[in-house]
Amino acid sequence: MSEFAPPPPTRILMGPGPTNVAPRVLRAMSAPTIGHRDPAYFQACDELVEHLRALFRTKNELTLALPATGMGSMECCVANLIEPGDGMIIGNNGVFSTRMADLAERYGAKVRLLKKPWGEVFSPAEIEGALKEAPAKVVAVVHGETSTGAMQPQMKQIADIAHKHGALLLADTVSSIAGAPFEMDAWGVDAVYTGGQKCLAAPPGIGCISFSPRADEALKNRKSKVTSWYFDLTMIRNCWNKNRFYHHTGPVNMTWALLEGLRMVREEGLDARIARHGKAAAALYAGVEAMGLALHVKDPATRLPTLTTVCVPEGIDEAKVRGMLLERHDLEFGAGMGELQGKVWRIGLMGENARSNNVYLALSTLGAALKELGAKVNIGAGIEAAAAKLK
Amino acid sequence: MSEFAPPPPTRILMGPGPTNVAPRVLRAMSAPTIGHRDPAYFQACDELVEHLRALFRTKNELTLALPATGMGSMECCVANLIEPGDGMIIGNNGVFSTRMADLAERYGAKVRLLKKPWGEVFSPAEIEGALKEAPAKVVAVVHGETSTGAMQPQMKQIADIAHKHGALLLADTVSSIAGAPFEMDAWGVDAVYTGGQKCLAAPPGIGCISFSPRADEALKNRKSKVTSWYFDLTMIRNCWNKNRFYHHTGPVNMTWALLEGLRMVREEGLDARIARHGKAAAALYAGVEAMGLALHVKDPATRLPTLTTVCVPEGIDEAKVRGMLLERHDLEFGAGMGELQGKVWRIGLMGENARSNNVYLALSTLGAALKELGAKVNIGAGIEAAAAKLK
Repeated sequence: MSEFAPPPPTRILMGPGPTNVAPRVLRAMSAPTIGHRDPAYFQACDELVEHLRALFRTKNELTLALPATGMGSMECCVANLIEPGDGMIIGNNGVFSTRMADLAERYGAKVRLLKKPWGEVFSPAEIEGALKEAPAKVVAVVHGETSTGAMQPQMKQIADIAHKHGALLLADTVSSIAGAPFEMDAWGVDAVYTGGQKCLAAPPGIGCISFSPRADEALKNRKSKVTSWYFDLTMIRNCWNKNRFYHHTGPVNMTWALLEGLRMVREEGLDARIARHGKAAAALYAGVEAMGLALHVKDPATRLPTLTTVCVPEGIDEAKVRGMLLERHDLEFGAGMGELQGKVWRIGLMGENARSNNVYLALSTLGAALKELGAKVNIGAGIEAAAAKLK
Repeated sequence: MSEFAPPPPTRILMGPGPTNVAPRVLRAMSAPTIGHRDPAYFQACDELVEHLRALFRTKNELTLALPATGMGSMECCVANLIEPGDGMIIGNNGVFSTRMADLAERYGAKVRLLKKPWGEVFSPAEIEGALKEAPAKVVAVVHGETSTGAMQPQMKQIADIAHKHGALLLADTVSSIAGAPFEMDAWGVDAVYTGGQKCLAAPPGIGCISFSPRADEALKNRKSKVTSWYFDLTMIRNCWNKNRFYHHTGPVNMTWALLEGLRMVREEGLDARIARHGKAAAALYAGVEAMGLALHVKDPATRLPTLTTVCVPEGIDEAKVRGMLLERHDLEFGAGMGELQGKVWRIGLMGENARSNNVYLALSTLGAALKELGAKVNIGAGIEAAAAKLK
């Protein structure tokens, strides 16, 4: 074997996630491992579910955590909602909806893509148009699209339309939950999933889902088994209720981590946390534009506060700038993905990192790097504009 | 919300896993989270794969860790090896092979079960008999069956037979790897999976797989996509090789934990670690029998050293004894599962816990509890017999 890898460096994670995990979450995670059939573990799981309901703002019975990443949580939702031959309309405006289409087709969905340029979102009328063309069992939208920085507005209207046409609404909230407003019950969203490593500031590798009574009914009315055994909610839900069924070995230490992250959300208050994300994002937007750079998402009402896409100026090498920031300042930005590759930086202000210090850090380091590479940027104006928003 | 759950208790985990995690693994896990696209993360992943190859004793290129539990790793192997209509022979002698049959059928396998009483194993001739009846693409056996305490011997002979009949051999090594001898390449096993929470003494929630060139060839020759997107090795492998493909968010802190656990295996030496498990198990067997209790697995050559099934004496309430041990001594034993429910205790000596102190602890606490409940046990004889084996 070659040398052991060096200890992990300390980075400032301002990409699309994972984001920096709070020290107390890291400490909680390294509490002793106990059995996943231990009464003390079940007690922790019960508390966790109460936090998750508060997080999604729902009373849904079927609300739980999964031993999988955000993509695993997407698969869990789709695999349980879809049976072979079911129609599914996917609002396709970025990486995650593209992935969902591939995933849903594997489970036998007849997928119809509603396409929009990356960075744009869907109007309720557009969703209704697709449903009028032909009904579908599931309509899916990405609430916070990490690959583009766009956030889908008018979720309630979309849910109403889906229900009017007999469809369920599935929403990806991996990057939005706890960083942007989301109201599962009030809006009528039927299935959601998220991951721990974004605005919950827990480590990656644990996911969360919630199904409305309507989605639960669809699950109970399935005619076929879910192809994935690992993601079969009919079994998994029985781990979380009084049956205490053994399905998988509970990811004990990751559960400690997510639980501590959720306690922090509760202590701060979900509204206060969302407002903190909004304020940091507004300062970043102002700074970026005052500096002379462009935001990729043009309509301010559709910007995802937790993840901002900044256009790479003409003649600048996107990857080179990220390399400079990482190597010199231990600062991570995300790269553009798919059709935005090389065209944007993705700057995350999530969880612990959605604070004024990181806004200053992002603007000043990006500004200095761009100046060094010959781009025309007004660093001072950018910093001052951000400062005005942070007052 | 009700009260917050209390901090996790400190337990001695002598059930089927998770087992106690070494303090240095818990510390490693709580190292800073970094980006899963960070060069430092890739470096750690490269080291991890080298350790995994040493662990399975293989040169297989397709060797990697998964953001899922042991059951997820089982699903990954089956989902990638099986296409709808493929024949599969499963040696069925416990919980995990029963689960595998359900899982494989979901992916379209035509499963034939080779049944044996729980606690027994298969002879190569029995496997060959099934293959002669009709060929199969995959033969699967559970190398270490955690639900019964049996270990499948003659793996090389079974692999040879599988290959002679054009089949691949899949083996579940979740409870055996690093605690019992296993030689992937020398025996010719084509696909294996394991989990972190047994003899590797890492926390639960991370899995590992390896595919032989023969299994890899079958993967490359698939005519259909793997139904599970999350477990599709064609994509996942590209995260681990030089393509550095983005498939899922790497479970960064769980990776730190598994890597540290694997470094400990390497430092101790895999042979020394296996011998340590064997010695502890031999002492437990001797103690149990000298005390007047029976071992469920009769043939010493087929006992799984990491997990021992002890028969519950006539008139004793199995669950009551486990409750006494947990409440009084923070000591966890496992319950019997499936057809062994109420009939056996499952005593794990895995990873950090496969040591003399835990043998004494298990025998003395179990003996005292049974005495209190009126069973006839000779505690002194049990302890002395174990002591003789531990010299």
